[in-house]
Amino acid sequence: MIKFDNDYSRSAHPEIIKALNEDIYNSYAGYGLDSWCERASDEIRRAIECPSADVHYLVGGTQTNMTIIDIALRSFEGVISADTGHVNVHETGAIEFTRHKVIALPSTDGKITADQIREQGVLKVHNPTPGHVVEPKMVYISQPTELGTLYSKSELEAIRTACTEFGFYLFVDGARLSYALASPHSDVDLRCLANNCDVFYIGGTKCGALFGEAVVILNDKLKPHFFSYQKQHGALLAKGWLLGLQFYTLIKDNLYTEIAKPAVKMALDVKAAVLSKGIRLAVDSPTNQQFFIMTNEQIKALSEEYLLSEIETVDEFHKCMRLCTAWYTKQGDVDAFIEAVKTL
Amino acid sequence: MIKFDNDYSRSAHPEIIKALNEDIYNSYAGYGLDSWCERASDEIRRAIECPSADVHYLVGGTQTNMTIIDIALRSFEGVISADTGHVNVHETGAIEFTRHKVIALPSTDGKITADQIREQGVLKVHNPTPGHVVEPKMVYISQPTELGTLYSKSELEAIRTACTEFGFYLFVDGARLSYALASPHSDVDLRCLANNCDVFYIGGTKCGALFGEAVVILNDKLKPHFFSYQKQHGALLAKGWLLGLQFYTLIKDNLYTEIAKPAVKMALDVKAAVLSKGIRLAVDSPTNQQFFIMTNEQIKALSEEYLLSEIETVDEFHKCMRLCTAWYTKQGDVDAFIEAVKTL
Amino acid sequence: MIKFDNDYSRSAHPEIIKALNEDIYNSYAGYGLDSWCERASDEIRRAIECPSADVHYLVGGTQTNMTIIDIALRSFEGVISADTGHVNVHETGAIEFTRHKVIALPSTDGKITADQIREQGVLKVHNPTPGHVVEPKMVYISQPTELGTLYSKSELEAIRTACTEFGFYLFVDGARLSYALASPHSDVDLRCLANNCDVFYIGGTKCGALFGEAVVILNDKLKPHFFSYQKQHGALLAKGWLLGLQFYTLIKDNLYTEIAKPAVKMALDVKAAVLSKGIRLAVDSPTNQQFFIMTNEQIKALSEEYLLSEIETVDEFHKCMRLCTAWYTKQGDVDAFIEAVKTL
Amino acid sequence: MIKFDNDYSRSAHPEIIKALNEDIYNSYAGYGLDSWCERASDEIRRAIECPSADVHYLVGGTQTNMTIIDIALRSFEGVISADTGHVNVHETGAIEFTRHKVIALPSTDGKITADQIREQGVLKVHNPTPGHVVEPKMVYISQPTELGTLYSKSELEAIRTACTEFGFYLFVDGARLSYALASPHSDVDLRCLANNCDVFYIGGTKCGALFGEAVVILNDKLKPHFFSYQKQHGALLAKGWLLGLQFYTLIKDNLYTEIAKPAVKMALDVKAAVLSKGIRLAVDSPTNQQFFIMTNEQIKALSEEYLLSEIETVDEFHKCMRLCTAWYTKQGDVDAFIEAVKTL
Repeated sequence: MIKFDNDYSRSAHPEIIKALNEDIYNSYAGYGLDSWCERASDEIRRAIECPSADVHYLVGGTQTNMTIIDIALRSFEGVISADTGHVNVHETGAIEFTRHKVIALPSTDGKITADQIREQGVLKVHNPTPGHVVEPKMVYISQPTELGTLYSKSELEAIRTACTEFGFYLFVDGARLSYALASPHSDVDLRCLANNCDVFYIGGTKCGALFGEAVVILNDKLKPHFFSYQKQHGALLAKGWLLGLQFYTLIKDNLYTEIAKPAVKMALDVKAAVLSKGIRLAVDSPTNQQFFIMTNEQIKALSEEYLLSEIETVDEFHKCMRLCTAWYTKQGDVDAFIEAVKTL
Repeated sequence: MIKFDNDYSRSAHPEIIKALNEDIYNSYAGYGLDSWCERASDEIRRAIECPSADVHYLVGGTQTNMTIIDIALRSFEGVISADTGHVNVHETGAIEFTRHKVIALPSTDGKITADQIREQGVLKVHNPTPGHVVEPKMVYISQPTELGTLYSKSELEAIRTACTEFGFYLFVDGARLSYALASPHSDVDLRCLANNCDVFYIGGTKCGALFGEAVVILNDKLKPHFFSYQKQHGALLAKGWLLGLQFYTLIKDNLYTEIAKPAVKMALDVKAAVLSKGIRLAVDSPTNQQFFIMTNEQIKALSEEYLLSEIETVDEFHKCMRLCTAWYTKQGDVDAFIEAVKTL
Repeated sequence: MIKFDNDYSRSAHPEIIKALNEDIYNSYAGYGLDSWCERASDEIRRAIECPSADVHYLVGGTQTNMTIIDIALRSFEGVISADTGHVNVHETGAIEFTRHKVIALPSTDGKITADQIREQGVLKVHNPTPGHVVEPKMVYISQPTELGTLYSKSELEAIRTACTEFGFYLFVDGARLSYALASPHSDVDLRCLANNCDVFYIGGTKCGALFGEAVVILNDKLKPHFFSYQKQHGALLAKGWLLGLQFYTLIKDNLYTEIAKPAVKMALDVKAAVLSKGIRLAVDSPTNQQFFIMTNEQIKALSEEYLLSEIETVDEFHKCMRLCTAWYTKQGDVDAFIEAVKTL
Repeated sequence: MIKFDNDYSRSAHPEIIKALNEDIYNSYAGYGLDSWCERASDEIRRAIECPSADVHYLVGGTQTNMTIIDIALRSFEGVISADTGHVNVHETGAIEFTRHKVIALPSTDGKITADQIREQGVLKVHNPTPGHVVEPKMVYISQPTELGTLYSKSELEAIRTACTEFGFYLFVDGARLSYALASPHSDVDLRCLANNCDVFYIGGTKCGALFGEAVVILNDKLKPHFFSYQKQHGALLAKGWLLGLQFYTLIKDNLYTEIAKPAVKMALDVKAAVLSKGIRLAVDSPTNQQFFIMTNEQIKALSEEYLLSEIETVDEFHKCMRLCTAWYTKQGDVDAFIEAVKTL
């Protein structure tokens, strides 16, 4: 069985495994106060060209989202998100668990627009019953989105402008950020990201690391007391240097983006093959996640050798299926899948 | 200025004032453990013909909603509500404050349907990623709704059936319940309500009392530890007998519904007059709240003598205005308003 | 049965009842945005000689404590309290419900000292594992304390100094404040209180009002967004003018303190009589609550005609009993009790 | 510099590193639904001789404590802990963050007794103001304790009996459990532990794993919905098989206890040497953590080559220092330290 069901089914990139193996006889200070984390943070600050950024390391995406949002918001403030956003639909209410409302907006291909954000801002300013409603204070977007799509530089800048106009923080979830950076269709690099948001994270779990997410805080207001919050949220790894080591390895020579490039290329090749076959896309994704509307027969035929994940039932005859490539996907497996598609 | 802006701008019905005045030299046990609360609860159990119901007294609507929902749900469970529901849009995130997601559904005239609830149930049962999403466990509806509309007996029974099918609790917010009971267009009485939901409350604040809401719990699972929860939520009034006295007065001879009847009648008279004038309704309400789409000129003309509340801007030329009658509204004021409408 | 079991068993002072009766035909804006609240707040600002203070009205003590503490603290910060403090032992975990630890200190007669607070400050500053422990940020004291005792002006000023030294907010719970102000043994008046704390409240429920607590915020940092927080905590009364009317009545001619004077005098008379009889005090209280160590025989003899409240079992033969006077206690009842004590 | 400052400064036991290296080309299902977790759980159930136990894998200790306690308790219920317990003093208020009070009891050498628990139970049952206080519902103890001490089998059984008598859950924090199991002074093995508590966890982070804690649930009431809670608390690792692999490796041939034995032996050797030198113990620990009262001169002399951790200042001349051994401590380093102690 060849698995294309997700991008977190394999341990870590060989360079990380190598670094871990070379480091098994060293001792480090706990809780991220070690030299690996220091070096990794320096590399990240260098990569984003922002020497004043704070960097912190957490273990997983939901944990990271709930911690950042809870730090940024007062209890009566909410976070704006696409209705398809991870924080809205796939975190078992972790944001509400920290007492904040997710203000879900209708989205197109997983994205929301500056105009939608501005509309929320206007509603807040012209609220006929101020104090009786949750006040939006942060905008959450994902790059790439949960549907694999990308915000362009101009879209990101427009969102930034809208956020600034209404005093909203902009938070970018980069759980799959490497696949955005590696896409030939992206004009948003790390610097552009850092220049336009208040806080974002560089996802490790799905992008080459064993686990881990590197939070980058640009806005000074969000910096104080991170350590205390992190500990209280159960989000502080005792052996924090394991995270520092991984992110140092990923960021220092841009391994992070490089290892995602073949994955994205293969995903786009699959998309082309699928389109050639006349199969519809659920969304036109330029990254490692692809979403196809397939017939039940097609799905059945492919399922004998290939594992995709079922997203939803479209109608009696069709389902939406997701195919994921990752840093560890083999060209041969993708070639075989493309051949299989041709024979459908 | 004649005020039709809301239904909570006056102290209490004369019968309640009288009872309060007659009771100023008596002493009572605190925290609802007094004879007035006992008598009021007996009257309520009699009125709903359910001797096993638990009754508790809280001070306000938001407080009541957040306490009940928090008692009923585990942290990862959410409450289904119309998108227009008070818990979704008018409680400053009080439900999220207690860690629960409001699962907001599109509504028609403030109402949701049994089919919509069933759809949520099916999604829960056939969830492809169980454990990763908030599980609906309670349905919240308001009778009358925030838009003044009513669930009919058959609609309520259908919702009950859908809830039972999927193990959902049904919670009815009765902040304005007297105006529902008093409507000539309603076929849902207190017994019907009690028969079909797991918990509801009889609103006092907007229905003749100085303040207070009487929670009626039908489902045994929701009964334990209410006192502890109430205290911890800051929702326990020290002089609880003030609530017992008011609800005893309201319920014993059905004053609760009787004092709402003229209010509803007057609201319907206003509606008829407005319709005669060719003014559109935003929603066709059979209770004490009426919603009109008026031109800016109409609004300006009326605003010199009458206070309505602005709900939202419809377009450049129109606004949606709410007119409320209440147990204390005078026939003369309504007559004058109707005359004023005629001259628009 | 003559009741001395608590100070919240009667409705309200006749002046308040009169004001309520005179106001039953007026309409007011909701949620505290009315003229009564405005006038009451002006009176309070005048009484404390602090024109810049913010004043807000809540319904009950636990609700007030949890709302203020939650507004003031970040989630990892805790509130220092006497171990006997109401927030530590008598609110069913309402403070923890809002995610904050109560840092309980050993107390003497219900009081903590400036030195104890300073010790917590030093621990915070010299913490060997910063970020791993809850940081104290607020000091909570009650005036009078839960045991009826009083902080003197010099004690209060010393506590203020310690708080300032370590950046702690000082919050004074004045649930029974009138009995402190009315005590001949007190040198702390309203101005002194306002000068020395960041936030306090003037208790109404136990001091002449039907219900209600007036929160006075002196520190600008604690002022923003109070309304939103209040609503979200379920602590916003729809008919807020009921609170404004009561506090205006209580504060304008200093009724608040005057009606507490006879209550305190009677309590001190009882204390003298009890001491004459050789009965020990559990604590030497100068206010309306008195705590006696009585034998089971004495308790039984008194219990036929008088209701006291049992606080705890001291040993096989003795119990600690509390006697409360209040603004509504009659001299004749106290005289009779004193006679009864003499005959023990 | 030879480091004895803690037991989590090194990556993982070679057997785990080996297993991780052998597994880098395999793919697994996410979120703990994989074959490694299944096999690890089977091994754990075998080791505790309890086929019906549920086993779950989390990342760190604080995260585990806050998740378990929050699952077990209703919001108004609290957890009893030694005042020195990790949940009370070293988790930045993580338990309060989930809305629960830690009911801290005075402890002796880090331990509480069955009698103390029974006393809390009696207070709960005979509470004069039920509903106004936090109700204890769970007892939290650590084996070994935060001070390295152990509960004996008879002590554990007595605590179990007290818990059963009052309906309390017993939760054992096993963050350093291997060092308890490996101590020659312990008569509590895994089966004994499992027989006497409702839930416990087998700590990995400090006991040979890279990271991770294995939660074992014995009581059926605590089993439902663990996955949802875990996800919502941000405590669900995407690549859960990394945890399964580690715990399988640790438990299957009892590596878990075996690798801790030399660590405990070395710690006891150091203790003997320190005692011989006339240095006082802060607590007499039979496990890998040792606590010494040393003079400032002694501390200074040792600090040039050895890193211990400072716990607290005892007086002007003395400090309490902690020395930790771990599964990775070398005999030579300990021998050298012992020699250094002799020359003090």
